[in-house]
Amino acid sequence: MNDIYLRQLQKNIRHGRLDVTLADGQTHSFGADGPRAGIVLHDDGVLGRILRDPEMMLGETYMDGTWDAVDGNLLALFEVSMLNFPEQRPEQRNRFAYLLQKLIARGNRIAHSYRNVAHHYDLDEWLFRRFLDEDMQYSCGYFYEPNISLEEAQRAKCRHVMNKLRLQPGQRVLDIGCGWGGLALYLAEHAGVKVTGLTLSREQLRVAESRARERGLEGQVEFRLQDYREHHGNYDRIASVGMFEHVGVRHYRDYFDQVRRLLAHDGIALLHTIGRSGPPGATNPWIEKYIFPGGYNPALSEVSRAIENSGLVSCDIEVLRLHYAKTLAVWHQRFRAHRAEVERRMGERFCRMWEFYLASCEAAFRWRDLVVFQVQLTHRLDAAPITRAYLYREGDKTGVPAPETARAWQAD
Amino acid sequence: MNDIYLRQLQKNIRHGRLDVTLADGQTHSFGADGPRAGIVLHDDGVLGRILRDPEMMLGETYMDGTWDAVDGNLLALFEVSMLNFPEQRPEQRNRFAYLLQKLIARGNRIAHSYRNVAHHYDLDEWLFRRFLDEDMQYSCGYFYEPNISLEEAQRAKCRHVMNKLRLQPGQRVLDIGCGWGGLALYLAEHAGVKVTGLTLSREQLRVAESRARERGLEGQVEFRLQDYREHHGNYDRIASVGMFEHVGVRHYRDYFDQVRRLLAHDGIALLHTIGRSGPPGATNPWIEKYIFPGGYNPALSEVSRAIENSGLVSCDIEVLRLHYAKTLAVWHQRFRAHRAEVERRMGERFCRMWEFYLASCEAAFRWRDLVVFQVQLTHRLDAAPITRAYLYREGDKTGVPAPETARAWQAD
Repeated sequence: MNDIYLRQLQKNIRHGRLDVTLADGQTHSFGADGPRAGIVLHDDGVLGRILRDPEMMLGETYMDGTWDAVDGNLLALFEVSMLNFPEQRPEQRNRFAYLLQKLIARGNRIAHSYRNVAHHYDLDEWLFRRFLDEDMQYSCGYFYEPNISLEEAQRAKCRHVMNKLRLQPGQRVLDIGCGWGGLALYLAEHAGVKVTGLTLSREQLRVAESRARERGLEGQVEFRLQDYREHHGNYDRIASVGMFEHVGVRHYRDYFDQVRRLLAHDGIALLHTIGRSGPPGATNPWIEKYIFPGGYNPALSEVSRAIENSGLVSCDIEVLRLHYAKTLAVWHQRFRAHRAEVERRMGERFCRMWEFYLASCEAAFRWRDLVVFQVQLTHRLDAAPITRAYLYREGDKTGVPAPETARAWQAD
Repeated sequence: MNDIYLRQLQKNIRHGRLDVTLADGQTHSFGADGPRAGIVLHDDGVLGRILRDPEMMLGETYMDGTWDAVDGNLLALFEVSMLNFPEQRPEQRNRFAYLLQKLIARGNRIAHSYRNVAHHYDLDEWLFRRFLDEDMQYSCGYFYEPNISLEEAQRAKCRHVMNKLRLQPGQRVLDIGCGWGGLALYLAEHAGVKVTGLTLSREQLRVAESRARERGLEGQVEFRLQDYREHHGNYDRIASVGMFEHVGVRHYRDYFDQVRRLLAHDGIALLHTIGRSGPPGATNPWIEKYIFPGGYNPALSEVSRAIENSGLVSCDIEVLRLHYAKTLAVWHQRFRAHRAEVERRMGERFCRMWEFYLASCEAAFRWRDLVVFQVQLTHRLDAAPITRAYLYREGDKTGVPAPETARAWQAD
């Protein structure tokens, strides 16, 4: 029965080498030179199930424990798979799945958004503390040098965002999708601004508020459980880091219209979001089902069309490549170090789901077309400087705040 | 008869002040505070002709000499007009004109491209030497500081392009749309690369070749009269500055497919093109008829969609705002200084056309949505560095080449 699937692998594996160990203990090798990976199947039917619907079944069968990667190296397995089963060209892509997802995304109304967010972000703080950096930054770090720590890369990300916002002490800043408050607290402390952070997760709100109290920043930072569409106000600056992935393509126009309304005439906004360097495509169905319901990673053409229609000006678009792969690699490594603890609390199936999530996302940033877009937005052509040299003054690229701006507002 | 048109102005002019002097010498003033401009009409019917079809007729009636701007200040007139007749929102835009233009653009086949280019660029070198910088850079300079000269801004532009290409001595570079050869010669001299420049203008080819000989660079730089679609080869780097405006939206896919084919696996390409920060729209019909037949300034969504479909990766998108307004202001000023000469050689109607062209474009970069996109393109996520700090090393932002790379290749 497995013969047809083995023949399929024989035909497809041309780069690197894949070793497949069947339930009877026999190992079949495919391909030759290059990266090498192995899969050990514990059940005779699993190979067929995977190959008939790899996008969903590879993850589901892994969660069920019906296979393992040799040496636990899921990443190597994804590498060999991605080398040999290249992403489909746009004309071959599943247009139906894409259109269906666009249709479903219509349903990303406020009530659904709360539910989608709760699914992931209302997981216990305890879990996220097992793999994130100490500041709980749940988006890609900025690796300005290859060998800096995750903590340093996350501080550098906050600093890079801060520089792009060109903050002045005392300014009002809105943080759409504030997570556990890390960026809001950073901006308040290092630029002396007043920050309002919005989240849809009760757990994130609780943690963010408690962290603001611990750091004596309650007067300067306010967190709210509120959808961005229901917020009113006028802000000098708006930051939105790692939240746009949950907006849904049908709501891009709402999103940028709302940024336009909330942003002061001479204001600056910064959008930081995962996207794809290739054409629009559907979210991986396994990720959508188990990790991020309602999630969608846009192509730049989708983001820019929505921005153009809003009347906002895109002043600068940095395409961060590979930074998220490096970030996910550290998260995965830290998760592995705490695996026994997590297994006791959340169970084996949860652990396998989480490992599959972290490794498959790292692989997609390394060998597929996932990237991060940082888009600087204004109303006016002259609201941001006309060259980008201000972002790269000597010393700034280290991510360490310039001492003169640190706590400047509080010092008043 | 003019009453209805004067009432229309009365209704519309709300910002700044417009003085309209009719053929009988009477002046009517509209609006109040803010920027001030005046128009003097030499013919009774001209006001109606302009207001019935301003996009075409403002320019045509100016060429005919039927009106003048007070103090010759066309720019002030455009400012007050643009303040009071804001650009139509996308939903109000003339969809028909836009679609018609897209259809017409299908005809931008190779033979037509030669004809379109000849219309403008086969104008005598003598004319362009009356207003461009000494290096004849016919695209926007890079004003890294507000008060540098045009010559310095154009050198800085070349240097910025060179830095984004990350050139190594000896590399093969293709320059698609090389103009009179300025960038190609700059790269050859300062980075020690071998450059092939393509143009469709016989006049540009003649000038570029003669300049290469004068500078002793014949062995290092080659110019060809050839359409980019007919060129074959494999290049480490590709630059294309101020040529994409002539490609036509129907041919974007051809263009990026050709860049993909011509670019080495680990290569870097840089596209520098005028675009609009707002949604796609039609080219101004006067500009299309008199200045750039077949020209089209894309929205970023149009460029990025074509790039996504080509399989290339956009690594960095700089949106240069206001640099072109500054460049056009200097061109206009220099043209004015040579107006008497140009009038003797090309006639008064030509001079008026050229002044209208320079002033209306400056206004569109200042008060409408025209910008310049610099898009860095690669095949691989890691072909360009993962941060942009390399562009802003100390000393580089001056546009003055680092001595160690200057003429490095020739020194071998």
